Amino acid sequence: MSEYQNDLILKMIRGEKTPRFPVWMMRQAGRILPEYRSVRAGLKDFKELVETPERAAEVTIQPVDLLGVDAAIIFSDILVVPEAMGLPYQMIEKKGPWFDKTIRSEADLNLISDTIDVADRLGYVAEAIQIARRGLNGRVPIIGFAGAPWTILCYMVEGEGSKTFSKSKKLLYANPQLAHQILTKITNVTIAYLKLQIQAGAAIVQLFDSWAGVLGPTEYSEFGTKYVKQICDAITEVPVTVFAKGAYYARHELAKLSCQTIGLDWNMGIEESRKIVGTDKTLQGNLDPCVLYADFSTIETKTKNLLNSFGNQRHIANLGHGVYPDTDPEKVKCFIETVKGFAIN
Amino acid sequence: MSEYQNDLILKMIRGEKTPRFPVWMMRQAGRILPEYRSVRAGLKDFKELVETPERAAEVTIQPVDLLGVDAAIIFSDILVVPEAMGLPYQMIEKKGPWFDKTIRSEADLNLISDTIDVADRLGYVAEAIQIARRGLNGRVPIIGFAGAPWTILCYMVEGEGSKTFSKSKKLLYANPQLAHQILTKITNVTIAYLKLQIQAGAAIVQLFDSWAGVLGPTEYSEFGTKYVKQICDAITEVPVTVFAKGAYYARHELAKLSCQTIGLDWNMGIEESRKIVGTDKTLQGNLDPCVLYADFSTIETKTKNLLNSFGNQRHIANLGHGVYPDTDPEKVKCFIETVKGFAIN
Repeated sequence: MSEYQNDLILKMIRGEKTPRFPVWMMRQAGRILPEYRSVRAGLKDFKELVETPERAAEVTIQPVDLLGVDAAIIFSDILVVPEAMGLPYQMIEKKGPWFDKTIRSEADLNLISDTIDVADRLGYVAEAIQIARRGLNGRVPIIGFAGAPWTILCYMVEGEGSKTFSKSKKLLYANPQLAHQILTKITNVTIAYLKLQIQAGAAIVQLFDSWAGVLGPTEYSEFGTKYVKQICDAITEVPVTVFAKGAYYARHELAKLSCQTIGLDWNMGIEESRKIVGTDKTLQGNLDPCVLYADFSTIETKTKNLLNSFGNQRHIANLGHGVYPDTDPEKVKCFIETVKGFAIN
Repeated sequence: MSEYQNDLILKMIRGEKTPRFPVWMMRQAGRILPEYRSVRAGLKDFKELVETPERAAEVTIQPVDLLGVDAAIIFSDILVVPEAMGLPYQMIEKKGPWFDKTIRSEADLNLISDTIDVADRLGYVAEAIQIARRGLNGRVPIIGFAGAPWTILCYMVEGEGSKTFSKSKKLLYANPQLAHQILTKITNVTIAYLKLQIQAGAAIVQLFDSWAGVLGPTEYSEFGTKYVKQICDAITEVPVTVFAKGAYYARHELAKLSCQTIGLDWNMGIEESRKIVGTDKTLQGNLDPCVLYADFSTIETKTKNLLNSFGNQRHIANLGHGVYPDTDPEKVKCFIETVKGFAIN
């Protein structure tokens, strides 16, 4: 018997027969919920929330209670990894992340380390998972996560968000060897970090390659997939999901990875993706988050169209990107309820 | 006999045999050249340069003289169209475009008009083309351009750049009828504007759908391609190029348009694109602009790899996006010279 009252998502990932599609949303724990904003208001800033296990666990559980999703995802940020490696970040209100120190040359390489004690530096994430697990009391599984190495390199090099990530791409072309050194270090820490999350109770882990889409096929293969593969191969304890946003051209490569699930953004056609990926993996996604700005009947129609395109194949319903912060929670519920009311024949 | 001393690009577009691939670069007239910055420094701002025909013509010709490209592209901005329709813009240094007025509801629709006299409102662009044409004296053809309707709508709705263009996408889902009304107006003006440019001497026109990639396949078909098609069908005087950045999923639809050339961003594989588009159209692109940050020998190798992937098929060498402003002009020349030294078998 499963340790979860609702283990629909795990069954779907394993390719077992399920009566309906499981559903959760990227960024479901966050600004869309007034209950989240209320927890957040009691703390200094976003970072304090990430680093306070009791509160991080609390907002992790909220969408399970309030939205009825089939999985929780630990409330955290992909930037905890570069910070643990030696590059502290700040999250600046209305602007995004900011790093004082960046990696631009060999001389900067000693700013980051991959021989850190992950359990010590990132113990607060493990603790948040443990507390959330107790709080959920077996209702649904918890998803752990990390940024994929290429995406983390982007922040280490740029020190902030970017439209083009041209400084990071410059590094790939101008000094590929240094790029590989950085990516190797990130990969080592990410593997240890995901194993820490699994030990703490994460039942699934997801890799977010948010900036995959700024690379072309050749570069993503050399600097992206290569390291994602190393992580997939190292994580054998629980199922792994890879979400490489924008890397539509890499789907045939991602299909060969040892991960169980591949995330799709809203640009990627379901039927086309299924053809490329084959039938051995579960797909996840991919409603355009902007659909949730429409009226209820449009949301219902577009969600049903999406579900129909899954056929009866292995699929986890989700958005094609994180839910946008100004989305009405009632619209979110409409999406989730539509999925839950849709029977797989 | 051709009216141009160098009509390589026109021959390639028509599918005639040429000894080498023609080459030009998006944003070739601009910040990469010290000679451009010197002209720009003598004027109040970017907008004054766009609106001063003599100066706009001067910077249009510079890359032909200084870089040896096979075509000039008129120095202008896609935002002159929303401005002519009723929404003035400012170009804010280091921030980008800004519109005081935006279109968010039916009530805002009367802010824009498609019954304007384009020759009056945008006569300065036509004049710049005429002056550039005289200055070039038949050396190479001039490319005219406009933003595609979806991309122009994005600026009309957001009033500035955006990472997600979620306000524009919200409109598509929440009020598709209003979106179609706006797109129709933009299309009407764009057709008249391109015809004005052609009358002034543009020998090719290019549509830039810079934000195509934020839409999924269904939405791009309904709100993007539909209007691009109307423009392609209306422009019969000169060859048309369509560059829908990020809309890889739409290549099979774009292949059916009456345009002669399809632009590719650096994500789009050449061979794959050729398979999708067929052999009846010319392709254009798609070196990653970040390759120009590498050393000379890497630029040469990557450019040759690209040229080899064209086979002997119809292709115009270009970058997969506008050249980035901090690119060394010598690196740009290396790209251009490599193309010009590469013989088609």
